[in-house]
Amino acid sequence: MKSMSKWKLSVGLALAGATFGVGAYTYEQLSMEEKLRIVPAAHVSGKLHLLPATMETTQWGWFDNAQTPVMTIMPGDTVALETMMHSHNQIVPGTTLETIKKLRIDNPGRGPHTLTGPIFVEGAEPGDVLKIHINKIMPRSYATNFNIPGMFGEFPKEFQDGQVKYFYLDMDKKVTEFAPGIEIPLHPFPGTIGVARAEPGKYSSVPPGPFGGNMDIRELTEGTTLYLPVFVKGALLWSGDSHAAQGNGEINLTALETAFKEMNITVDVIKGTKLDWPRIETSRNWITMGYDNDLNKAWDIAKAETGKYLGQQRGISPEKAVGLMQKVSDCRISEVVNIKKGVYCMNPKDAKSTITVDHPVAETNRYWVTTATDADLNKAMDQASMAMIGLLQEKKGLSRLDSYGLASMSMDCRLGDLSDDSKSVHCLMPKSLWVAKK
Amino acid sequence: MKSMSKWKLSVGLALAGATFGVGAYTYEQLSMEEKLRIVPAAHVSGKLHLLPATMETTQWGWFDNAQTPVMTIMPGDTVALETMMHSHNQIVPGTTLETIKKLRIDNPGRGPHTLTGPIFVEGAEPGDVLKIHINKIMPRSYATNFNIPGMFGEFPKEFQDGQVKYFYLDMDKKVTEFAPGIEIPLHPFPGTIGVARAEPGKYSSVPPGPFGGNMDIRELTEGTTLYLPVFVKGALLWSGDSHAAQGNGEINLTALETAFKEMNITVDVIKGTKLDWPRIETSRNWITMGYDNDLNKAWDIAKAETGKYLGQQRGISPEKAVGLMQKVSDCRISEVVNIKKGVYCMNPKDAKSTITVDHPVAETNRYWVTTATDADLNKAMDQASMAMIGLLQEKKGLSRLDSYGLASMSMDCRLGDLSDDSKSVHCLMPKSLWVAKK
Repeated sequence: MKSMSKWKLSVGLALAGATFGVGAYTYEQLSMEEKLRIVPAAHVSGKLHLLPATMETTQWGWFDNAQTPVMTIMPGDTVALETMMHSHNQIVPGTTLETIKKLRIDNPGRGPHTLTGPIFVEGAEPGDVLKIHINKIMPRSYATNFNIPGMFGEFPKEFQDGQVKYFYLDMDKKVTEFAPGIEIPLHPFPGTIGVARAEPGKYSSVPPGPFGGNMDIRELTEGTTLYLPVFVKGALLWSGDSHAAQGNGEINLTALETAFKEMNITVDVIKGTKLDWPRIETSRNWITMGYDNDLNKAWDIAKAETGKYLGQQRGISPEKAVGLMQKVSDCRISEVVNIKKGVYCMNPKDAKSTITVDHPVAETNRYWVTTATDADLNKAMDQASMAMIGLLQEKKGLSRLDSYGLASMSMDCRLGDLSDDSKSVHCLMPKSLWVAKK
Repeated sequence: MKSMSKWKLSVGLALAGATFGVGAYTYEQLSMEEKLRIVPAAHVSGKLHLLPATMETTQWGWFDNAQTPVMTIMPGDTVALETMMHSHNQIVPGTTLETIKKLRIDNPGRGPHTLTGPIFVEGAEPGDVLKIHINKIMPRSYATNFNIPGMFGEFPKEFQDGQVKYFYLDMDKKVTEFAPGIEIPLHPFPGTIGVARAEPGKYSSVPPGPFGGNMDIRELTEGTTLYLPVFVKGALLWSGDSHAAQGNGEINLTALETAFKEMNITVDVIKGTKLDWPRIETSRNWITMGYDNDLNKAWDIAKAETGKYLGQQRGISPEKAVGLMQKVSDCRISEVVNIKKGVYCMNPKDAKSTITVDHPVAETNRYWVTTATDADLNKAMDQASMAMIGLLQEKKGLSRLDSYGLASMSMDCRLGDLSDDSKSVHCLMPKSLWVAKK
């Protein structure tokens, strides 16, 4: 709350009323283990907690609202949270594709992600909003990208073959070398961050939802703030599926998959504020989103969420506000590989601002471009992204599998004109990835 | 070899002849797992290998020259090596002192250190020298310091009580906060890095020796180069016991104990060059060293090693060169808690340079100072460091256990006048650790 003006809250979250939910909890009640994890930190407001990723503080592949919290914090506290690689750290440089596939097949019903948590946030109650500001992210020095033969990803049928590659993350230069002469810029973000559902039981970590989870929104980097609706007492916050970079679509199933040596977050509770879907605040935008098995329905949700935001911001009805989207909202694909596919829209905080984003239909100075139009957004996305896989082979001489992987980590798929009978997707690949060979 | 002039080698290592030991090994012979760990890296000469720390790539507490290598590299290759916290990552923020003590008692005969390796270096043979240049070190975001009640450390009898503390490592500011108003500067280095002994069997990782190992020399930071004698084919290189900072003496048993998300090293082989003890090259110095159960004998070894170096550098006999040490060598305590205690001497590469280091006998503008003189160097060190523990309580209001811990992480113990019947130790604590409270 300290860092947020009344105005920001009112436009971003339709604030009904905000007070700190400080309950009966006191630090003295914590276990010895939890006390040891609170460390001196004069620069941090609130307490600083260290949360290492161990077999005791992580779960592999599911969210369960009955999971015993691994840490209890107060609103305003900061956590330096560590994450693991997939499958409880079994997918690390050297792990073969065969092993990766076996880990998935032998563990049906759960995701590959290792989730650190849950963190119990004192005072958070159903109907509140959890505010998570990302102060800093530092990944491990390595990452991986793979597609599993004939399984998962946007094109499992077309890719009966697969590959795994490992990469060195150079966080001084903020790039990773994909191949000689090709560098991917690094923008680490949590692929998965979410709270517990209201419903009891173990849920696969794969599909995202109103609770957040596997949102795969690459804008959620250091310096941004995530807002999640709270469904259970204490909220129960997890994160995993740590990414060093990701393309919009994440088409071959994986981003530049890493683990975070540190994701440093400050967590607050906003009382009595209803939120239907997560929102993200960046320096310039409020991001709205929607997820569904059908990308058309995901778009409908994102549209409704955006209408609510823009209506609130401009004092008009949500229905009328939706009509402004073409002028002010920059909508893109988050992912199409997590069972529930996603669309997110970036909406400028400055109500006077109009959209400046390009939706090119052919190659530009800065981008390789593919595009497709269809009444079915799923088909438009499939066509545009498959076209990019072809383009990268033809124009840049990449192999099929490398094209699939590089697009999964770097392609930017934007929504253009969107009517019920004609939806266009524009996929862009930055030419700046190709650098002079050293 | 590329980075080293003939002159540097000749003075540092009494070079008999240097050629690369490239054997029959080719990259094509590597296993699929090892090939997957070699990643694109145009900026690196040689190949870049990723070595994650897992249960398969680490051992807890021993060196064994029969251990199957976890990686094979060529001379000139670079490794981005990861390490774990102690006891196979069981000592992480939240682990109680009781558990730490139990882990040690339940595992007699081996050290607490988790060692990543061994790395087989193609072409390295007994009688060669392994050259390890440290390109970069990045620790995890947390660290610990502890003393175990009545066990280990310089003063087990005097400290029947113990404590464990955890800390946040701020690598942006390169400090950790020990307590409000007290900041420890971070200078990460491998507490333990070494090669296999000639002798078969499992050896505790605690005592250092001619093979390197638990040297605890805090000068071995990013940018420096370590030279180790090779005793077995392939050398077999390990590292662990990762430190974010350490005092000379490491008196309460532990430094600022962390794990490295990355220790990036380039490894070379210098053929046919005899070395009796490890040496370290910094930008200004060649460091010589000695270790023994008796600090007086460790000093004798360091003296002999320094005589060899200075004699070589100046074209005089080692015996005569030892006489120069008082003028040109800056000798300090490495540690007194690893069964074999250590002394190291920093010898300027510039033969015209004379010693500029202070050996104060009383408080200065920059340091709190304690000092002791005795014919027995063990006693002089014990007296000087115990006096510092007292001083920190008296002058700075620290608790006994905090004084012990802070001195273990930050105190600098230097050797002053050293004759057979009078050896002086000067322990300095930088006043700069005390900063204005925020």
